[in-house]
Amino acid sequence: MMPEAVPEAPAQAASRTVFFVSDGTGITAETFGHSLLAQFEQVHFHQVRLPFIDNIEKAAEAIERINQVAKQEGRRPIIFSTLVNQQINTVVRQAQGLFLDLIQTFVEPLENELGFKSSHSIGRSHNMADSKQYQERIEAINFALSHDDGQLHEGLDIADVILVGVSRSGKTPTSLYLAMQYGIKAANYPLIPEDFERNRLPSALPPRRRKLFGLSISPERLCEVRNERRPGSKYASIENCRFEVNAAEALMRRESIQWLSSTTKSIEEIATTILQEIRIETRSF
Amino acid sequence: MMPEAVPEAPAQAASRTVFFVSDGTGITAETFGHSLLAQFEQVHFHQVRLPFIDNIEKAAEAIERINQVAKQEGRRPIIFSTLVNQQINTVVRQAQGLFLDLIQTFVEPLENELGFKSSHSIGRSHNMADSKQYQERIEAINFALSHDDGQLHEGLDIADVILVGVSRSGKTPTSLYLAMQYGIKAANYPLIPEDFERNRLPSALPPRRRKLFGLSISPERLCEVRNERRPGSKYASIENCRFEVNAAEALMRRESIQWLSSTTKSIEEIATTILQEIRIETRSF
Repeated sequence: MMPEAVPEAPAQAASRTVFFVSDGTGITAETFGHSLLAQFEQVHFHQVRLPFIDNIEKAAEAIERINQVAKQEGRRPIIFSTLVNQQINTVVRQAQGLFLDLIQTFVEPLENELGFKSSHSIGRSHNMADSKQYQERIEAINFALSHDDGQLHEGLDIADVILVGVSRSGKTPTSLYLAMQYGIKAANYPLIPEDFERNRLPSALPPRRRKLFGLSISPERLCEVRNERRPGSKYASIENCRFEVNAAEALMRRESIQWLSSTTKSIEEIATTILQEIRIETRSF
Repeated sequence: MMPEAVPEAPAQAASRTVFFVSDGTGITAETFGHSLLAQFEQVHFHQVRLPFIDNIEKAAEAIERINQVAKQEGRRPIIFSTLVNQQINTVVRQAQGLFLDLIQTFVEPLENELGFKSSHSIGRSHNMADSKQYQERIEAINFALSHDDGQLHEGLDIADVILVGVSRSGKTPTSLYLAMQYGIKAANYPLIPEDFERNRLPSALPPRRRKLFGLSISPERLCEVRNERRPGSKYASIENCRFEVNAAEALMRRESIQWLSSTTKSIEEIATTILQEIRIETRSF
């Protein structure tokens, strides 16, 4: 989030402090706040996280910090709040800031729609460590780690998806993200020069063909990434990257493996795209 | 998200379909929606993700899916939207649903406050794969993987934090989460029976004392977790878990290592707590 020159605006307007206040981790407030603030590219935002504001004393401390910034900067900070507790919410909204209440704003229309009162408690998400869904995420992380880079064949049959692709095409971070965010059991398996010479998939993969999903990458980007890891090596050379990427794509095409290019995509975008594809596939069989 | 018996409410009110609609991954809409819906424990929510709705054709398809559900269920669905593109937003809000607009609701007060117009584009978050912050996250994931379980001493000096604790106390998932969410370089190092016998920290750790952060866990919970991995082993026995946890806590106390109990905390809560602690420390030196 770099500041940019904005000649038409007063200089001091281009920098603002933002607080993310929550009675939980504040991750929701922060993720959401980032999406919104990203639409104001002219402004540099200094960001402060205030998690676990779950009693009146901490609420008072939070107000003090916010008011101090307001005084120092001569401009009121922006506050993204996911405070669920109404008493604490009432206290913190008195701070000298623009108070954007992510919860309360939508609770009323939801109450009207659902015909139930909100519990006004952090609720299920707070007890997530005990939930079945949470246990599945932890299991999926362990699965991704033990099935990283083709290291364990046992258990491949319970994988939700097996990512294939050349070394450094983004398989490992994507597998971990799928596990952590969605509880998806993702194994990953490299396509290596020996596979291209034999011109077939590693033998563990054809029996699990339906679970395969490919990641490719542009040779230029792959060359960059590999040079960070092993500078100047044959492995990282543009000629070798071109050869491997072309061979991998030809192999995936011939084996009818769905694949996408990770070149300009974030792991979030890759993971969400894969999820769409494998869910559709699951549904159609 | 299990349905619960709610005798005082009409049966059909206790189940609703929710759509998360976005021109990006929809992860923000979904994360945020979950926090809100968690406050209505009486209702079972059937959740549908509609990511990458980035043109008018996809918008029309989205409306059709939503309207079909409205018709089938005889109740309008709930729509959490992070559609930034105004044209697409205008189309999708015509669907037969309760349209909760997470972006537009806050863009206007932000525009007034900041004195700038919003770009109404997905903006920086969409191009995140190119950003410095994103590259740091990927590097941090690679760091966490190569410095998992004490396997690599080289590079420990560039770690932001080194998590220590007994086997299965939650070090690995926490390290990965710190990397993925915050770009924090987290190594982790196990405390093992040999350390307790010698009654000192593994030799790699004392020179990096300021970076150490401990995870502990209740012996009962540790016993459960280890029994899933190695059922009936001495390693998993309650006696051994009690011995290791007590010894590790005594060692951390004596070495003045800050620690927390991971027993009832999610990885998000553990990671956020650690982040608070290490940031404060960084500031005070």
